[in-house]
Amino acid sequence: MAKDFPTRQENYAQWYNDLVIKADLAENSAVRGCMVIKPHGYAIWEKMQAQLDKMFKATGHQNAYFPLFIPKSFFSKEADHVEGFAKECAVVTHYRLKNSDDGKGVVVDEDAKLEEELIIRPTSETIIWDTYRNWIQSYRDLPLLINQWANVVRWEMRTRLFLRTTEFLWQEGHTAHETKEEAIEETLKILDIYAEFAEKWMALPVHKGLKSANEKFAGAVDTYCIEALMQDGKALQAGTSHFLGQNFARAFDVKFLNKENKLEYVWATSWGVSTRLMGALIMAHSDDHGLVLPPKLAPIQVAIVPIYKNSDQLAAISQKANAIKEALEAKGISVKYDDRTIFKPGWKFSEYEFKGVPVRLAIGPRDLENGTVEVARRDTLEKETYQLTDIENKIMHLLDHIQDNLYRKALAFREENTFKVDTWDDFKEQIEKGGFVLAHWDGTTDTELQIKEETKATIRTIPLNNKKEAGKCIFSGEPSQQRVIFAKAY
Amino acid sequence: MAKDFPTRQENYAQWYNDLVIKADLAENSAVRGCMVIKPHGYAIWEKMQAQLDKMFKATGHQNAYFPLFIPKSFFSKEADHVEGFAKECAVVTHYRLKNSDDGKGVVVDEDAKLEEELIIRPTSETIIWDTYRNWIQSYRDLPLLINQWANVVRWEMRTRLFLRTTEFLWQEGHTAHETKEEAIEETLKILDIYAEFAEKWMALPVHKGLKSANEKFAGAVDTYCIEALMQDGKALQAGTSHFLGQNFARAFDVKFLNKENKLEYVWATSWGVSTRLMGALIMAHSDDHGLVLPPKLAPIQVAIVPIYKNSDQLAAISQKANAIKEALEAKGISVKYDDRTIFKPGWKFSEYEFKGVPVRLAIGPRDLENGTVEVARRDTLEKETYQLTDIENKIMHLLDHIQDNLYRKALAFREENTFKVDTWDDFKEQIEKGGFVLAHWDGTTDTELQIKEETKATIRTIPLNNKKEAGKCIFSGEPSQQRVIFAKAY
Repeated sequence: MAKDFPTRQENYAQWYNDLVIKADLAENSAVRGCMVIKPHGYAIWEKMQAQLDKMFKATGHQNAYFPLFIPKSFFSKEADHVEGFAKECAVVTHYRLKNSDDGKGVVVDEDAKLEEELIIRPTSETIIWDTYRNWIQSYRDLPLLINQWANVVRWEMRTRLFLRTTEFLWQEGHTAHETKEEAIEETLKILDIYAEFAEKWMALPVHKGLKSANEKFAGAVDTYCIEALMQDGKALQAGTSHFLGQNFARAFDVKFLNKENKLEYVWATSWGVSTRLMGALIMAHSDDHGLVLPPKLAPIQVAIVPIYKNSDQLAAISQKANAIKEALEAKGISVKYDDRTIFKPGWKFSEYEFKGVPVRLAIGPRDLENGTVEVARRDTLEKETYQLTDIENKIMHLLDHIQDNLYRKALAFREENTFKVDTWDDFKEQIEKGGFVLAHWDGTTDTELQIKEETKATIRTIPLNNKKEAGKCIFSGEPSQQRVIFAKAY
Repeated sequence: MAKDFPTRQENYAQWYNDLVIKADLAENSAVRGCMVIKPHGYAIWEKMQAQLDKMFKATGHQNAYFPLFIPKSFFSKEADHVEGFAKECAVVTHYRLKNSDDGKGVVVDEDAKLEEELIIRPTSETIIWDTYRNWIQSYRDLPLLINQWANVVRWEMRTRLFLRTTEFLWQEGHTAHETKEEAIEETLKILDIYAEFAEKWMALPVHKGLKSANEKFAGAVDTYCIEALMQDGKALQAGTSHFLGQNFARAFDVKFLNKENKLEYVWATSWGVSTRLMGALIMAHSDDHGLVLPPKLAPIQVAIVPIYKNSDQLAAISQKANAIKEALEAKGISVKYDDRTIFKPGWKFSEYEFKGVPVRLAIGPRDLENGTVEVARRDTLEKETYQLTDIENKIMHLLDHIQDNLYRKALAFREENTFKVDTWDDFKEQIEKGGFVLAHWDGTTDTELQIKEETKATIRTIPLNNKKEAGKCIFSGEPSQQRVIFAKAY
């Protein structure tokens, strides 16, 4: 299975796009900007969902489901929110088709026009806060900790598979609290969950931090984010957690009787990660040979390929291979034994390598005699012969080791591509080359926008627990107390 | 917690609606016909999803995700399909909002009109078969066994929570096969899975059968279904599995090179169950005291309530209760220990009864002395005192027993409400009273429609493996070879 596609060096954007398509992760659909998530891609997304869902539930959140549609009038209720989303809304105006007069198809039935247009949710704060008004009367109803797994639509002009699509899948948490402090605590708790998921499951090091006023969510008081660096030196925002203050409670009149028996507006958060994480995962670890997946998110962790010349050999090898498979599965490892006879071993090796299976085992007649197996690692492409004794623990250990190795490699890459700069010329030069650029900034939106205008770089995040140091803004020369992270971004 | 709602006898429709809302399963949203699925309802749906997904995967199916939107032109390609769905389609016509001239809100931006309107999927055959054209070239690409968990929209004029809503959640399987026989086999395999799920997990007896031509899916050659009887004597279609023949392959030009190297159209199936199953589950078992859930689908299977007079007693009881909880959880039983001090035991009893928790344990000071616990069953409302020895196995056994009991009760109800009739007068009388009515039918759509016109009854299904017996159609008097099942239906 030859997978003809450019190297990262030759054309990074094309490498990514080809990889997504040829590794059967996703493809463009007949609907502009919308993707089809193929089974191999969806299986990875399901593993992400399962882990995140577990982490949300372990911290007291429950799932629910709110309508796909949002009445247009709801949208105008929070001024910043509508300003941020109005330009990318898909609008339902009619509810019926009819046969066309020429009999050649169907047309929209103008008699079935909606009195009020419905927006396909780009995010659900408005419909959810309209609902919460009836769910919350007293402090006894709080906190309300709800998450939803759903599809959302944001009309995008330029789309890229997983990274930016018109429809995407995500989870959106929407919580309601008695106090400001409790809401901020929730915002940060979720940020920690996102960072832990990125680092421990995706093997992707992230910076936790605050967005600048210009980059925050439309309707938020503060937006926190996790920010990662891709192999082409561009940043990727991998998740956001918003402290919404009382903005949506005011817009939708959601008040509660507090413990002092006084009516007060509810405090809110919202937070989400999406199928964009798939783009981050693919770009973070993959190489010119294809996909590289961290073991914890790989749908198949170990593939076993028999090497044989005749059916007797295959039968003997299969017996051993199935025993290994069972032993590994008993340890919770997902295994595929590929005894298909229509493909040659070389084709299978190439297939599993390309699709990112972390460990491949090959067993031939000599292995049977010697009680051995050939073990190939996807991350380093190294091969080694293992004795079969205690193979399940050896493989478990190897999978853990690969997971760690991917993280350490990504971390080393990030460190190598993080630069402190102190002059405007150095800044422009480094931004052009790529990477995270740590520089002083005067804290104004005006400066941020001018820097963006001139270099296309944005402030990715103001890291939490940032070291304070006096300096001068690289653009305006005004005093600054800390460096922030600039980069060009996806 | 007093739950004021009518009995089934007083007003079945109101009983159902109030139960859904007051048991926190779902509620109507601000968007006409769309529901909000609340956490308790969604938790049951998640249990359904998990089991069905497991069954689909165990039979070789993979999940994927296709776009929410379907270009209008795709809809016209299969004539029966568009005929069936055109009248209930939500249509997206624009992709942007703008500020209104009066500055008081947003309006649709007429400059952002789509060249071709997009339909919100009412079902995904068209977009999926358009995609399959590129996925299928040869018999080696077959079978293609794909399932999708998604939301769909069908514009309904009369809606009822879970049973018929404009937006609903479902799974839709779409498979492609080399031969007609293999596609029919798949259709029936899925029907068996649906029936097994209904009977073993939902404790709901169903008839497996074929739909009449008039009731089949728009675009199918044959529609198979599982059909259940609700407590008010009305039928509910709980799942359908369609043999699509080559209809969609022809409409979307999906051909494959067969083993003889000849181009041939692909054979297809599609099949689905939806959040409508929630309606079936609620109506099948619940009573005038509230929800009754089969243990296999109950989010909480056992609730433990402490009975105490002071904090010392509570501490002692909590120690014992937590030990029981751990022992039950080690057996895979989901348990809630409710030691909230703001609610009295009576309130908690009523809450768990109303919300359908299968088993409730109560522990008081005397139980501590005696090494006992009070065990209350939701299905029979019986209470009994158990010795704590080996409590985990006793409770496991009890949960199994409750699951069986609910099934047997529902089966007995169905048998009692199934009637053979042989004259038109008896037919009309029995249909009016309710239940499944087994009657001879001459096999024509014309007769079926006239019967529906006069009695509102439809042919629910022609049972598989139906006993052949000569008879005369109750309506036309024409000869018939078998009885079919008539009923009024949801």
